[in-house]
Amino acid sequence: MGSRRYAVIGTGAIGGLYGARLAAEGFDVAFLGRSDVDTLRHHGLHVSTPTGDLAIDGVTAERDPGRIGPVDVVLVTIKTTGQAALAELLPPLVRPGTIVVLMQNGFGLEAGVAPLVPEATVLGGMCFVCATRTAPGRIAHLDYGSVTLGEHTPDGVPAGVTPSMSAVADDLALVGVRVSTPSDLLAARWRKLVWNMPFNGLSVVLDAGTDEMIGDARSRRLVRALMDEVAAAADAHGHGVGEGFVDTMIADTEAMTPYAPSMKLDFDAGRRLELAAIYDAPLAVAASLGVATPRLRMLADQLHFLDARNRR
Amino acid sequence: MGSRRYAVIGTGAIGGLYGARLAAEGFDVAFLGRSDVDTLRHHGLHVSTPTGDLAIDGVTAERDPGRIGPVDVVLVTIKTTGQAALAELLPPLVRPGTIVVLMQNGFGLEAGVAPLVPEATVLGGMCFVCATRTAPGRIAHLDYGSVTLGEHTPDGVPAGVTPSMSAVADDLALVGVRVSTPSDLLAARWRKLVWNMPFNGLSVVLDAGTDEMIGDARSRRLVRALMDEVAAAADAHGHGVGEGFVDTMIADTEAMTPYAPSMKLDFDAGRRLELAAIYDAPLAVAASLGVATPRLRMLADQLHFLDARNRR
Repeated sequence: MGSRRYAVIGTGAIGGLYGARLAAEGFDVAFLGRSDVDTLRHHGLHVSTPTGDLAIDGVTAERDPGRIGPVDVVLVTIKTTGQAALAELLPPLVRPGTIVVLMQNGFGLEAGVAPLVPEATVLGGMCFVCATRTAPGRIAHLDYGSVTLGEHTPDGVPAGVTPSMSAVADDLALVGVRVSTPSDLLAARWRKLVWNMPFNGLSVVLDAGTDEMIGDARSRRLVRALMDEVAAAADAHGHGVGEGFVDTMIADTEAMTPYAPSMKLDFDAGRRLELAAIYDAPLAVAASLGVATPRLRMLADQLHFLDARNRR
Repeated sequence: MGSRRYAVIGTGAIGGLYGARLAAEGFDVAFLGRSDVDTLRHHGLHVSTPTGDLAIDGVTAERDPGRIGPVDVVLVTIKTTGQAALAELLPPLVRPGTIVVLMQNGFGLEAGVAPLVPEATVLGGMCFVCATRTAPGRIAHLDYGSVTLGEHTPDGVPAGVTPSMSAVADDLALVGVRVSTPSDLLAARWRKLVWNMPFNGLSVVLDAGTDEMIGDARSRRLVRALMDEVAAAADAHGHGVGEGFVDTMIADTEAMTPYAPSMKLDFDAGRRLELAAIYDAPLAVAASLGVATPRLRMLADQLHFLDARNRR
């Protein structure tokens, strides 16, 4: 039975999935939510998986972080489009020694959050998972599920494998989640972007799934060119993704179950896209380093146009 | 009353409009068509304009070019996606001295057609016009209407204003069409591409009209970046579009009546897009000259993907 106390900000696919796994193994988990809170309180949390389902009753769910209070670990699982709310939501959950894990996509998130909670340790958590919230309190876990953890440092110098990373990694491993703990958070963030920047964006612009994009010679060529630009930016930033990584991502995607990236689901639902975190922030880094990223910037421009119109 | 005999290949917006204008002024005009031929024969040709309509009865329309025979001027107005058919359609209409005007969009068209009709003079004709075929034999002429003529030379050296150009220009001017006759056909082709490559393609990818694309800061920035790549290719090709031309195109489009480019209409109707002529051919020239066109190539890749899926 787990001993650390967790708060999970967000009751969507990521928060619901990992929160439920921790709760099922006896961790004390409190969910901070909005519209789903009453459903979680009265009907619990249900996670369906291809190999069996998980039902958690007696879920602690709150709208006010002050009613949860300081915890050992905070998992931040909201979309980055709601990042501004963390200034209100995070501090009541934190005391000296609290570990805050940003299980979100994008770049520069940790540097934005760390000043809000100076007494906490901030980790990035990259989730490689296909999961969707099908209804309040109901998560469908479709495939994958591993988490990569890395610790934020103010100067971006790789932190190595720290005690905070090991603590969270141990808990996740205990509940059956595959965890990796690379020494360089920023390199891990760039590696995630190598996949996310092409596929999230093109899935919206081309209205296509990963299988279509990787199966067509023209779009596969474009995906690779976009990936090469991300890799070049990572190299220039001093946090390179490593030799052959783009080839691996292409091959992995060819072998993947067809999949609609989260940005496509957001777009189809009329929700604001996570463009600031996934495009604007890394492109600003690339620009500051003088790295040419014409295709990524074109994709970002197309996405900003489509996102603005989509929400009108 | 005009004296030259014309054949018009194609009964769409361009062929119908200019053919009707010539016929209305007494030129002998024969239309070579397919599905519209019977309608043209029995019901004539109708052009509606904001300032009045034009109705032509007794239209000569044929499916077999041999029934028309050699003429003084052939106006080629079919989509370039049907270019292969010209090997059959053109020769029966040509004798020594015939002028063939390719009133089509794209690059390298004249070099492809000239060998089919070695006894003819081949001109490029760029139409700046908003017109659509609303039904067989019915054309709506919405705005603009000028034509730019340039003469093809095998080596691409500017031909100047030739007698063939003057002959066709005189006829078009006689029927009220504004004509310009630049000395360098290839420069004129590149100038047309400066507008066509961004707006035709983005109208499909972004599902947007010219007003939306020029009115949004992000897409306008992207349009400009794409235009700059076309202009750079033209410069490297030795047929530059001239200082300030991109600015002029942006300003002209801002002042334009909102307009759906022909490629968007083709896409929405499930027709094959004119990608070979408008993207692949100029991009091949740019590549052969070592000009970087990452955004244009990305747009072409997106369009090839969308076009292939659209026709499945």
